[in-house]
Formats: sequence, structure tokens, C-alpha cells
Amino acid sequence: MPAPNAFYAQSGGVTSVINASACGVIETARQHPDKIGKVYAGRNGIIGALTEDMIDTSVESDATIALLKQTPGGAFGSCRFKLKSVDENLAEYERLIEVFKAHDIGYFFYNGGGDSQDTANKVAQFAAEKGHALTCIGIPKTVDNDLPITDCSPGFGSVAKYVAVSTREIGLDLQAMYATSTKVFVFEVMGRHAGWIAAAGGLAKQRADDPPQLILYPEIPFDEADFLQQVQDCVERIGYCMVVASEGTCDAEGKFIADAGIKDAFGHVQLGGVAPTLVNKITANLGHKCHWAVADYLQRAARHIASATDVDQAYAVGKAAVEFALAGKNGVLPVIVRESVNPYVWSIGEANLSDVANVEEKMPRHFITEDGYGLTDAGRDHLLPLIQGEAYPSYEDGLPIYARLKGQTVPRKLTTEFAI
Amino acid sequence: MPAPNAFYAQSGGVTSVINASACGVIETARQHPDKIGKVYAGRNGIIGALTEDMIDTSVESDATIALLKQTPGGAFGSCRFKLKSVDENLAEYERLIEVFKAHDIGYFFYNGGGDSQDTANKVAQFAAEKGHALTCIGIPKTVDNDLPITDCSPGFGSVAKYVAVSTREIGLDLQAMYATSTKVFVFEVMGRHAGWIAAAGGLAKQRADDPPQLILYPEIPFDEADFLQQVQDCVERIGYCMVVASEGTCDAEGKFIADAGIKDAFGHVQLGGVAPTLVNKITANLGHKCHWAVADYLQRAARHIASATDVDQAYAVGKAAVEFALAGKNGVLPVIVRESVNPYVWSIGEANLSDVANVEEKMPRHFITEDGYGLTDAGRDHLLPLIQGEAYPSYEDGLPIYARLKGQTVPRKLTTEFAI
Repeated sequence: MPAPNAFYAQSGGVTSVINASACGVIETARQHPDKIGKVYAGRNGIIGALTEDMIDTSVESDATIALLKQTPGGAFGSCRFKLKSVDENLAEYERLIEVFKAHDIGYFFYNGGGDSQDTANKVAQFAAEKGHALTCIGIPKTVDNDLPITDCSPGFGSVAKYVAVSTREIGLDLQAMYATSTKVFVFEVMGRHAGWIAAAGGLAKQRADDPPQLILYPEIPFDEADFLQQVQDCVERIGYCMVVASEGTCDAEGKFIADAGIKDAFGHVQLGGVAPTLVNKITANLGHKCHWAVADYLQRAARHIASATDVDQAYAVGKAAVEFALAGKNGVLPVIVRESVNPYVWSIGEANLSDVANVEEKMPRHFITEDGYGLTDAGRDHLLPLIQGEAYPSYEDGLPIYARLKGQTVPRKLTTEFAI
Repeated sequence: MPAPNAFYAQSGGVTSVINASACGVIETARQHPDKIGKVYAGRNGIIGALTEDMIDTSVESDATIALLKQTPGGAFGSCRFKLKSVDENLAEYERLIEVFKAHDIGYFFYNGGGDSQDTANKVAQFAAEKGHALTCIGIPKTVDNDLPITDCSPGFGSVAKYVAVSTREIGLDLQAMYATSTKVFVFEVMGRHAGWIAAAGGLAKQRADDPPQLILYPEIPFDEADFLQQVQDCVERIGYCMVVASEGTCDAEGKFIADAGIKDAFGHVQLGGVAPTLVNKITANLGHKCHWAVADYLQRAARHIASATDVDQAYAVGKAAVEFALAGKNGVLPVIVRESVNPYVWSIGEANLSDVANVEEKMPRHFITEDGYGLTDAGRDHLLPLIQGEAYPSYEDGLPIYARLKGQTVPRKLTTEFAI
């Protein structure tokens, strides 16, 4: 009897290192052909399982799979799609099992954030109830760093490095310009509910007055009058002010400040952007010349400046997921354990999917300075290890070489279609 | 009699490699103590000469000066300040000569764009008329790549590399997300009057349907209806659409599309941003989910992903400027000469300041595809050499090491103040 196949899927917003986890899964599976047959990847995540649209990774060369380690994005396609509960949509669970059975899939590796671990957990329970032998292992991922239990989320360290490096670079630019031009710069970064990414901007600071002078966290209610006063004080004291602002900056009522109800000339709602919103407030109230940047996908796709620590951890959780499966574990995921702070030493631990599912880990208050606008030494000590090392991709003709898969589709075995 | 001192100033928007030019000037000057005394740098550019506020680079160690080669921003401060004509403001020219005389300055190196070369030229003429022995040499710089005569402008190649790499990375992210989420991504880049930087986004494309699918150039009048049709066709044909848009995108009347007259709830004019403006149009008319990024200073400060070719050229024009001065030249600047296309071979040539001053070099039409939305092979062949090589800075603790100068002020010799 041939070894059962494995199904791997990417979920949610992608990161610059989620493919490194895929690489860890596939390379490790290939070392155990007696236990794991082929690794099929869902085209566009779990949707690929529901629609029986899977990519056969076995036709990709070892060299291509190795290149995944340095390739951002989601090589097989991801999706923003969450399975409902079994009660709400039994058909989805039955379909998954049907597809898995049809393709001799005995392993399910789900690479995503809290939502995805919730899904993996539900699938594990459902399969067990139905008596289908399916090993379900999660693989953590999220740039937001808001997963519980794990020391950090693979994907976060590289965004943090991008934000820290960019903050330092923008700061130098601003310092050169402020005498006759730009006085305030606002750099908008991701993190809708947790300020981890914004906090990373604080790593750029070496001395008390270095940029960034102000950080806006989702955890701290935005007080417009106080913020404007802080900006003004800073410009008066040191000549300029650099702000790193989380996209999730919101007021005391929890209303996102980017959601300002602005409409264009045609009455269309103007899409927000925390940076331009803040800049409009500063310009209108203080009159300073401002510049702003919104990094958006730039930050989470920036594989060219990925953290080597993050790449290693992303690969390690992919590898460990397969090893957990081979060791007979089920309904768990590998997590990062901080063994020692100085020097930073990490290892792979194990958590239950049910403990990780749907829990959002915010920034601890003691990582944020008392005034709400800075990063404390404790926060700095916690974050700095995560951006260590440069894992540069290889280049050709001035540009990074990123994997391009054949993406060969696994022949269908079912005759029924499934609408999602 | 001691050798005369030199005055070096940075001007206009800084780049990730203008300090490499400074490094070239200072290191080369240090090799000729018999001809050049100390190199003084204007604090905040030419304003530092007018206000007699200069930085003594001679107290900086060789190691610190060497670090300038990997440091973005403008280490001595730059300025947006253009000397008027001699007729309009004779006092400024007289003051410059007064300061130069007081500090035994016999060399003036002005590192900037077309405006700055115009200033350098005027100063050269004025000094000659007044019989003051002053050698004036320009050093080209501008991310916009719009200087005439020179094959490219130092500073541009690194922005081009950042934009090309980022475009490829965002494209991979978008390809992973479009099935269930973001269908259109708009990436706004610099270049108010010339599309060179936007064109660099086109370097990311390897195959016909690769991102970016659309590039918006200042040289091509923006036709909203046609643009929306192009986006829609693209989304229907390949599922998603990535747009690289120049900040200078404007309509047939030359009106910037970001200048949309949008006001917020308080009646304040909403600062533009081409990317959010385009995204609002796409969302309102086509209904697609969009994401957008505005790179702004990110792109021109991104020393971490600088082009090695650009760094070499920036250093070389700084070095050549000093060599020109030592060879008795005056009123000229070094330029980049493309000796051969394949392989790309460049050398340093010479141009008159008067020929470079105030001329804006646009993208040649044949570098833009006939439909106005792409980069031709000719454009690609021209640009690709400029992004070759990675000149990574050294890192410490996960972050690039950037020079931090003592910035010691040259003691004043004049008793008069000068108001600007």
C-alpha cells in the first residue's frame, strides 16, 4: 500500500517567508517517501481542496522547491476564506473529506493565522468523528505577530526588519531636509489590531532624539489634541518629527482614524489611509510641510530585506509540522519557544490548535512607554532578536530570483463540482 | 602658503547615494593635501555658506568618511533653496564670496540637480568677474534621472532598483491574494515631471502577463475612461491588475490627477496621493477590492537595496569632481558616459554647467509602449544596466550601520549675520 499523500495550504494574507514554511514541509516530506506520498498544495488555499484544484508539488525540481525559501508571496495562492462551523456548513467538511479520500490524503498541513488554526482544528475533529484517518497539523504564520503561545509568528520578524530599516532610512532623509522643507514625516505600517509592527519602527532609534519620535499604536487611544501638541513640541525642540503610525490607530471609541468619512467630489467615500489622514490634520492645524508613505504590501512582501532569524523559523515550523505528523501527533502546531533572551536562543515547541485558534495577542502595555508614543527597553529587548541576520535572496540581472512553479494540476477524481 | 580649502554642499532632495559622492570628494581631496586644505561642508547646503555655518570634515575619521558610501540621506543637511540671479539678489553672491574668502575657500563643489548646476554656474561667473580665484565644479545628483547629457543621474539607479524589486515582490503577493481578495494594486512612485522611476517598475516583468500590467507616466496624458477599461480588461483576462503610477500622472491639460480638490469634513483640502485617487476611481467604477502603497521617501532613502552600479557612479562623480578641479577645470561637472550597451561599460565625461542647468530630460517616447502603459524593450535595455549589483551596507544588531558625523562647526570668522 503506497504511503498516503499530504495536503498543504496557505491561508490569509501572505508574508515574505510563508513559502519558506512550504519549503520546510516539502523538503522534509521528500525525505520520508515511505511515510508520505506526494505533497499536494491547494490552489488558493483551502478553496483548492473544496474545488479539487490542487497543485502537484512532486513535479517541481528540488532546486525550485529550494528557491521557495527565498520567494515572497504565496507560491500556491492563498485565500481569505474561513470555513464556517460544522453546524453551519456541514457540506464543506464533508466535501473536504471526500476530496481527501479521493486523493489518498492522510495529512493536512494548514499554514495560517489564528483563523486557520481554528479551521484546522475543526477539520481534525470532524475527520475523527467520521473515522477518516487524517493527521491535521497547523503551521503558524502572520505578519501581525498576534498569535498566542508562540514567541513570535513567522512572517513578523521580516516585516519588523523592513519597518526598522525603512524608519532609520527615512529618518536620515528627513534630517537632511527639515531645515528648509519637510518638517514632519508619517510612515504608515500594518497591524490593524496589534501594534507589534509599529513598535518595530522604534528599533531604528539609537539615541533619545533619533527618529521615530512618535509611534501610534492600536492599543493606545488616539487623542488628536495631544498628538498635535506632541508633534509641535517635537518640531520646536529638534526641528522635525517622524511618526510611525499603525493602520489600526483608533480613537477612544475604537473608531479607526482613517475611517474619516471623507468623500470625493462625486460623493464617493474616500478610502482612508492613516498617514494622509494624520498629515491633513498636521497641515491644517500646525501648518508644517509633511511627507508620508504607506507601505502596505511593500512591507510584507519585502523578501529582499527579510530577517534571517524569521526565515529560519518559518522553515523550521514547516519542517516540524511534518515531523510532528510522522511522530503520530494530531491537532497541534509547532510554535517558537524563547529558550534564552541574551543570547537569543529559540527552539520548536508544540501547542494545541484549539489553544491558538481565534486568540489575538496584543502588545503588552509595558512594551509601550508611559506616554503611549514610544517603545520601552523591555519592548526593544523583546523585538530586537527577531530581526537579526540578513537572508538575502540570490540575484540575476539586478533582480531577486524568485521561484516560478510549473503549477501542474492534480488530475481530478471526482465528478461533482463544489460551489463556494 | 597653505593649500586653499574646499567647500562642498548637497542640494535638493537627497538620495540613497549622495553621501557616496561626498565620500568620493572627501577621500580624493584627502589624497592631495598639497592642493586642497580642508573640506568644509555646508550645513544644510548652500545656506551653510550664506550663514557661515559649515561642518569641518577634517575632524572625521577615515572610517567615518568611508561609511558615508553606505549611508542614505544627506549627511551634512541639504536644502531646497535656489540662488536668484545676480541682478535679483546681488547680496547673496557677494556674501558667498565673502565667506569663501574669509575661510580661504578656493574650490566649490555643488552636489545637486539641474537647479544646483545653474547656481554653481552663476557663482563661477560671478567669482570670475570679481577676480576671486574660485574653482566651481558641479556633481550630478537626482533620483528623477532628468539631467541632460549624462547617461543617468546618480541616485536614480538605486531608486530604480528599489522600485523594480518592490514591484516584483508586490506582484507575487497580489498573485497569491487575488482569487478571493485584492484584485488591483496601485503602487505610487516618484517622478513629478519624468517617468523614469515609474518605468523602472517595468523591469520586474519577465513575461508578457507578469506584473506590472499598467504603468502611468507623466509623459502620457491620463485618460480616465481608457485607464478604467484597461484595468477591467486586465482583471477579466488574468484575474488581477498591478499598476505602477508616477506621482506626476496628469491629464491632457497637465493637471495632476492627485490634485482632485478633495476636502475633508472641515473643509481642509485633502492632500492628494495618486495611488489613493486611482483606487477611489477603480473602486467607485469597477467595484474591485484594491490595495495601494505610496513609497515616497522609502524609495529614495532605501540604501539597503541600492544598485552597486549607482553607488559606484555616485562615488566616481565625486572623485572626478575633485580631479577636474585639480586639473584646472572650472564651470564643468563630471557626467556618466555610456561607452557600450552590452556589456554595459561606462566612463566619466565632462559637461559645461551651463549646458546642464535647468534642462529637464523626459523619457523618450520610444521607451514607452504605443498604448502608453508599458515599457518597451528599448526602454528595458536602457534601464536594466543601471540596477545591476547589490551594494549592501554592513549591519549591526539587525540594522544597517550608517555614518554618524561629529558635525563639528568651523569657527566663524565674520561678524556679520546674513538673513535668508
